Amino acid sequence: MQRTVHVDLGPRSYDVRIGAGLVGEIGQSAADLDAKRAAVISETNVAPLYAKQVLDSLSSAGLDAWDIVFQAGEPSKTLGVASEILDELLGHEPPIDRRTMIIALGGGVAGDMAGFVAATALRGLRWLQCPTSLLADVDASTGGKTGVDHPVGKNLIGAFHQPAGVLIDVETLKTLPREELTNGLAECVKHAVIRDASMLDFLERNVEGILGNDPDVMTELIAINVAIKAAVVTADELESGQRAHLNFGHTVGHAIETSVGYENIRHGEAIGLGMIAENRLATGRGMIPDQEASRVERVLASLGLPVHRAGLDAGEIWKIMQHDKKALDGRVRIVLASAIGDVDIYDDVTEDEVKSVVESLGN
Amino acid sequence: MQRTVHVDLGPRSYDVRIGAGLVGEIGQSAADLDAKRAAVISETNVAPLYAKQVLDSLSSAGLDAWDIVFQAGEPSKTLGVASEILDELLGHEPPIDRRTMIIALGGGVAGDMAGFVAATALRGLRWLQCPTSLLADVDASTGGKTGVDHPVGKNLIGAFHQPAGVLIDVETLKTLPREELTNGLAECVKHAVIRDASMLDFLERNVEGILGNDPDVMTELIAINVAIKAAVVTADELESGQRAHLNFGHTVGHAIETSVGYENIRHGEAIGLGMIAENRLATGRGMIPDQEASRVERVLASLGLPVHRAGLDAGEIWKIMQHDKKALDGRVRIVLASAIGDVDIYDDVTEDEVKSVVESLGN
Repeated sequence: MQRTVHVDLGPRSYDVRIGAGLVGEIGQSAADLDAKRAAVISETNVAPLYAKQVLDSLSSAGLDAWDIVFQAGEPSKTLGVASEILDELLGHEPPIDRRTMIIALGGGVAGDMAGFVAATALRGLRWLQCPTSLLADVDASTGGKTGVDHPVGKNLIGAFHQPAGVLIDVETLKTLPREELTNGLAECVKHAVIRDASMLDFLERNVEGILGNDPDVMTELIAINVAIKAAVVTADELESGQRAHLNFGHTVGHAIETSVGYENIRHGEAIGLGMIAENRLATGRGMIPDQEASRVERVLASLGLPVHRAGLDAGEIWKIMQHDKKALDGRVRIVLASAIGDVDIYDDVTEDEVKSVVESLGN
Repeated sequence: MQRTVHVDLGPRSYDVRIGAGLVGEIGQSAADLDAKRAAVISETNVAPLYAKQVLDSLSSAGLDAWDIVFQAGEPSKTLGVASEILDELLGHEPPIDRRTMIIALGGGVAGDMAGFVAATALRGLRWLQCPTSLLADVDASTGGKTGVDHPVGKNLIGAFHQPAGVLIDVETLKTLPREELTNGLAECVKHAVIRDASMLDFLERNVEGILGNDPDVMTELIAINVAIKAAVVTADELESGQRAHLNFGHTVGHAIETSVGYENIRHGEAIGLGMIAENRLATGRGMIPDQEASRVERVLASLGLPVHRAGLDAGEIWKIMQHDKKALDGRVRIVLASAIGDVDIYDDVTEDEVKSVVESLGN
């Protein structure tokens, strides 16, 4: 089974293809886009697993291809490492030109980094994204956000640079650690809450296939999620309006992450707890019935995500939320559901409301 | 006298305003664009002359404004210096946000650098360009090219990032060294040859006003040139087609520059000689009459640009041309006129043709 989602951004449109075995089709995709050469940018966890396969595919399609591999992990996502990769890329012989394509191979970090290098080399090279984690599949694969971290904050240096195509090979999920799978599943639940109640049904019906990494189930799941992300992104490419809906669960979730420390909680767990807290804000305001919020919590639990967390410091979490980069003039901006599948942005949540729901996560 | 040229790029459209005293209007322009704060990025030659005036203008318009000043000169145009400026910008307290605007104050280097910082900070901040050299006024002010150099070549790292507005204060030309003026005038002649024969008339009629820096003449001259550049850029924002016409004079000109060394020839002089050589290629092919090429040479001479250069190494210049980053699959691509105001791209010029016209520059 293969699925294709078209991301309609006018002259920057592209297809996201999802299926088993697509790593072997990267070469043909690059050739179809009239690339003559390709630099595969990957990291030390993923390159040993798939770089050879990708390079072989590119060579078979007639491209001159080579790889550039950087140290895996978020700490590598710096302008310094980007600069080293650019040195290697720009120093390549014979010199790269506009028909050289960047292939981003790996999870979110590899995609952000390779995308940023593609965005800035020769003022923008075309790039193909080949994500290998569920989180990258359902989130970073669509929308063209690229960038690196800065000591002051994550993703503060970067560019919007849409890929020329995305190839999601569900077979790469087999090498993904289980905890990385849950990071991606939290984003799927988020997409359901902000845009598509029927996806909650899909998640409920397919827990076994998802946790068992069934290729057809994963292809379907990823296609649904890419379509949701694509719809949001095409309506708001540069994140000035409704793209902010994608922050659902993240305002409280990021603050939880910062408060307890990145090493003490997984991203997906923090976002899951953030969604629970933000849904409880909505139920507290009478915006959604308790049973809807409870249903989301049951789905999260069935997918292996925690729905409780003891020892959270509600006062500190509130303070961190006030310093969120999405806050405007000091007001906390938060996405709340008025139904599963329908959300809006609110800037009037109070300290008391937030503290109360954060404390409820400990019970 | 004030002139405004609208650059029509859909959602990325902006106005280029030209006139005397516009440095004092930057604050109002930023406020009109709903900016709350502004970082003025400038360099050590220009900041002492105009930064205070710009900061005062921003403060008077109610913005919180500060400046970031880097060492003047092309050697500063590196990713390392960009990184230092980003450190200063992202470390500012209170933290910058989407309503923080970048003001680029200075010549081409300041515009390229500040524009690149604007392109990458928070994945793209809005920026106002306030060019202070004639070359930047007529060339870099329009088109959104930003970037830094790399040891391998100039402008190899960068982005297309259109400004939100451009303010060209012709009074800043009074502090511009005369040799910098000629750099800009060479670009004006180039615009005439590629798009607008009537501008040659304007140049011929206004030599005195131009070399005397008459504010009205310069306003008119810059407005004509910005309009030409804007027409080219709007037809081809990302430089895939006719924007390459702007390389007229540059294929041979850049090769001359590289061959004799950047310290031994001014950019405008090299481009002037490049245009003469490329027009002689066209006359050699019978594409334009000799008197048209001679007229262009007379205009260049009247504006103070050299029309001869002894000791050029024609063989080396040909070799350098073959390595130009615009060359495709090793073929030299060159822009030739079929009339003054009408050019096209050719990839069939031979070594003999090029050597012959380069050698003719020595006579």
